Amino acid sequence: MGSLTQPSSLTLFHTSPHSSIPSRSFFPRQQQHRRLCLTVKPLASKTQNTTPQKPKEKSHNNEVQKSKPEGTITPRSQDFNAWYLDVIRDAQLADYGPVRGTMVIRPYGYAIWEAIQDYLNVKFKETGHSNMYFPQLIPYSFIEKEASHVEGFSPELALVTIGGGKELEEKLVVRPTSETIVNHMFTQWIDSYRDLPLMINQWVNVTRWEMRTKPFVRTLEFLWQEGHTAHATPEEAEKEALQMIDVYKKFAYEETAIPVIVGRKSKAETFAGASRTYTIEAMMGDQKALQAGTSHNLGQNFSRAFGTKFTDENGQKQHVWQTSWAISTRFVGGIIMTHGDDAGLMLPPKIAPVQVVIVPIWKKAEEKANVLDAALSVEKILKTSGIKVKLDDSEQRTPGWKFNFWEMKGVPIRIEIGPRDVSSQTLVVSRRDVPGKQGKDFGISMEPSILESYVKDKLEEIQASLLEKAKAFRDSNIVDVTSYDELKVVISQGKWARGPWSASDSEELRVKEETGATIRCFPFEQPQGMKACLMTGNPAEEVAIFAKSY
Amino acid sequence: MGSLTQPSSLTLFHTSPHSSIPSRSFFPRQQQHRRLCLTVKPLASKTQNTTPQKPKEKSHNNEVQKSKPEGTITPRSQDFNAWYLDVIRDAQLADYGPVRGTMVIRPYGYAIWEAIQDYLNVKFKETGHSNMYFPQLIPYSFIEKEASHVEGFSPELALVTIGGGKELEEKLVVRPTSETIVNHMFTQWIDSYRDLPLMINQWVNVTRWEMRTKPFVRTLEFLWQEGHTAHATPEEAEKEALQMIDVYKKFAYEETAIPVIVGRKSKAETFAGASRTYTIEAMMGDQKALQAGTSHNLGQNFSRAFGTKFTDENGQKQHVWQTSWAISTRFVGGIIMTHGDDAGLMLPPKIAPVQVVIVPIWKKAEEKANVLDAALSVEKILKTSGIKVKLDDSEQRTPGWKFNFWEMKGVPIRIEIGPRDVSSQTLVVSRRDVPGKQGKDFGISMEPSILESYVKDKLEEIQASLLEKAKAFRDSNIVDVTSYDELKVVISQGKWARGPWSASDSEELRVKEETGATIRCFPFEQPQGMKACLMTGNPAEEVAIFAKSY
Repeated sequence: MGSLTQPSSLTLFHTSPHSSIPSRSFFPRQQQHRRLCLTVKPLASKTQNTTPQKPKEKSHNNEVQKSKPEGTITPRSQDFNAWYLDVIRDAQLADYGPVRGTMVIRPYGYAIWEAIQDYLNVKFKETGHSNMYFPQLIPYSFIEKEASHVEGFSPELALVTIGGGKELEEKLVVRPTSETIVNHMFTQWIDSYRDLPLMINQWVNVTRWEMRTKPFVRTLEFLWQEGHTAHATPEEAEKEALQMIDVYKKFAYEETAIPVIVGRKSKAETFAGASRTYTIEAMMGDQKALQAGTSHNLGQNFSRAFGTKFTDENGQKQHVWQTSWAISTRFVGGIIMTHGDDAGLMLPPKIAPVQVVIVPIWKKAEEKANVLDAALSVEKILKTSGIKVKLDDSEQRTPGWKFNFWEMKGVPIRIEIGPRDVSSQTLVVSRRDVPGKQGKDFGISMEPSILESYVKDKLEEIQASLLEKAKAFRDSNIVDVTSYDELKVVISQGKWARGPWSASDSEELRVKEETGATIRCFPFEQPQGMKACLMTGNPAEEVAIFAKSY
Repeated sequence: MGSLTQPSSLTLFHTSPHSSIPSRSFFPRQQQHRRLCLTVKPLASKTQNTTPQKPKEKSHNNEVQKSKPEGTITPRSQDFNAWYLDVIRDAQLADYGPVRGTMVIRPYGYAIWEAIQDYLNVKFKETGHSNMYFPQLIPYSFIEKEASHVEGFSPELALVTIGGGKELEEKLVVRPTSETIVNHMFTQWIDSYRDLPLMINQWVNVTRWEMRTKPFVRTLEFLWQEGHTAHATPEEAEKEALQMIDVYKKFAYEETAIPVIVGRKSKAETFAGASRTYTIEAMMGDQKALQAGTSHNLGQNFSRAFGTKFTDENGQKQHVWQTSWAISTRFVGGIIMTHGDDAGLMLPPKIAPVQVVIVPIWKKAEEKANVLDAALSVEKILKTSGIKVKLDDSEQRTPGWKFNFWEMKGVPIRIEIGPRDVSSQTLVVSRRDVPGKQGKDFGISMEPSILESYVKDKLEEIQASLLEKAKAFRDSNIVDVTSYDELKVVISQGKWARGPWSASDSEELRVKEETGATIRCFPFEQPQGMKACLMTGNPAEEVAIFAKSY
């Protein structure tokens, strides 16, 4: 918590005078700046619309000189947090809401979330889960039923106390997570072992009164899916919890090109109410860890608190064994911070709302019709092949401005078509992930079948390349340690420390207090053999990964 | 409001002892009953699971005698409201949540909502709208900005007054609708005419502290989509509002087989904050009207209240012209109440989560393998053709029980396969919408191409037939009137009265107070020529439709 990066004073993010709790803002410097520049238009689109750039391109070889829009983003290496906020603003992913810590997810950011939903929704159904919807208002008494759950969540609750103009007899909690209300309903739906397993999921908003907020990563309200299951045996619940963390892992690797580390949380970091929490931990561009998804084996903790029982095959009443698992809009933050660079967002093709942008280029009026015709026909070819393509044929912008804009938006492939390309029936392709000439292919044929297979191959190549790059970065920043002193050095360098651990919860807390790092997980992939705990020297069965985190 | 049907004392719906505001329940009789039968298991699935039926089928001709599950639903003609609640329970569409007036949407009910989403989402994108997400917590001061908006919504607000353990300086409203926060953000995104039109949509939950609740039709929290657009001219806004009500109309007719009447709301019934409200009004099986979707031309009401301005092509600052439009989970209630019958739900094929259910039938153990093989191969054929098919091969239930269960769930087509069918490589098809022998086709070939085209044709036939039936019912229950006396008679018969209207708001209110009917709309389809107002005798340009409504 103490390790959050400071907000940059360069950000142009707008704050509203209506902010409901100004006294508790956690963007102090930023807020101050925002007040000073309230007349500055906060969003890239508006700045761009009112400050048209002069065209500065050479048409030869399509080598367009880039004209930087106003409000260029902070370099990533200079201030990672300022860079992150700048990218979110300029790529039009999100904006602050009027209430402190809330976020408006703009269409481009929401489209990434929709891509996440589309993939996971299919996987959830394939693995036997049904979608449904539980009310978001939960009686306060429900939250109190499971001891560690109330301890974990009560500081973060938003409470409805007035409804229809009257004070309510019982305060209502705005859903921070749904285990309690789910169990309340499960007691009514589960009677016999034949009703099990009960496997459901919901895509909803949740509200947690977070102290330190950051767009996507930690907001007062966020969107997520929460899966909830009930089983007849502890083995089935454990298998389900493991199955779902594996679904998340595959999603992270295959769709978002984020090489997460999968493992088990320490007791201290386990979900409030769970017996065991599995996690996927991602390394961001500043080497901090992001908990990107969790799957909990809840044991019988909630079923005992709520009396969720079934009659087994022998006619005996038993409490059900449960799991819950979630991925949220935080994942969008993970994608930004894993792949982005100084030019802005960089999206893995599989998750990109726009996979290919076509920029037509002409100088003379008589060139325009032919260039646009060719661009339209290329757009049609790609669209027909199922590629998400955008033709940017607006005349208010120069090609140079467009290059910058779509790079900022992280579009994996740019196609340039100029008058010479039309004559030769070819086009130029630029990769977002490989800057300069190295990332350009000239003379690609416009012939439909050639173009289609070229672009599809290229998208796959980019997807694989982003994963490889992220893997290499991750691996070069995880250091094996054998002592607490080594751990401290590694953490102070901003890296992840991996070492044998069998020490106590209080020693884990000491590490956190002294270094700012926490146990991210005991990874599933473990070295063989017994080791000595880095803290105590006692035998340790497992290595743990320590890191600072979001 | 005063015309809501009374809840039935037969319902087994469960209520929780945790209901937060027991003193304000509006289901008095029902609640009383619920308290008396708290030990009665509320849900069909559980009753069924614990009370297996005796098989009573004859295998000849697959004429299976139906064994009624316990807790048979109330006949529709006897008590429409009790029937409605029974169907929702037994078809497992929804359940009450623990907080008064909230609803848990169960997987089968949610799947209908997903089908609604799938269709509309594509249409919204085709018409140029992008999805996004606005926070649900809105500063109270926002709601107060537009005079008629606050008047309309303030009695229904749920207010968050405590966050993170502290009293908030400003109360926060849990989104009842989003025009206010949308305008707050639009002011930041709209600068010039080039930023217009701005056309967005969100799929979210909204909360309204309703007094009289009814599952799907009116609940404290419900799911909906809300579209919001901003335009440079009033003509464009009007065109958009009309376009979206037309999208809704087509959806109602083509997907849900509900022949809605499209029209304009009277001033008294216009949305709080709108200049004009367009509506689709559906006639339920008890002849009451259900407002099934609305599209509002907001004029400049919100843009003036929030200062949402743009610079036009002449450099002049102008307020934008806006629309908003919504369809909610209420529509699921409309589908139930339009098509359902005494046997339960009846779903139009295009919106049905299961379009075809296959029930295998065998008596002797040696018949089982062949029958199941045939059923599996039929399932595969239909699945491959993109038909939503379910094979009910459970051995805990008799075919007769299954027939009842899937009829209750409203599955359009049932396929029965018995040993004789296997020998002849044919099967028996039953239509949900045509009871008895008349709805059965015997000897349908299992040959893939024949079966596929037979089933597809049959599904289309059912879809068209449901619409025709609903149209005939609607038309036979709309009566033209020329005087208030005639109107009173027609309304007292439970029908809709259509007559010329140019009287005042207070006379409209008088009709409501004296008859319980309101102006549902001035329909787009109008008879030619001038008429005399049914109330005053003065010239009237339009006819209005009066009806009691949900």
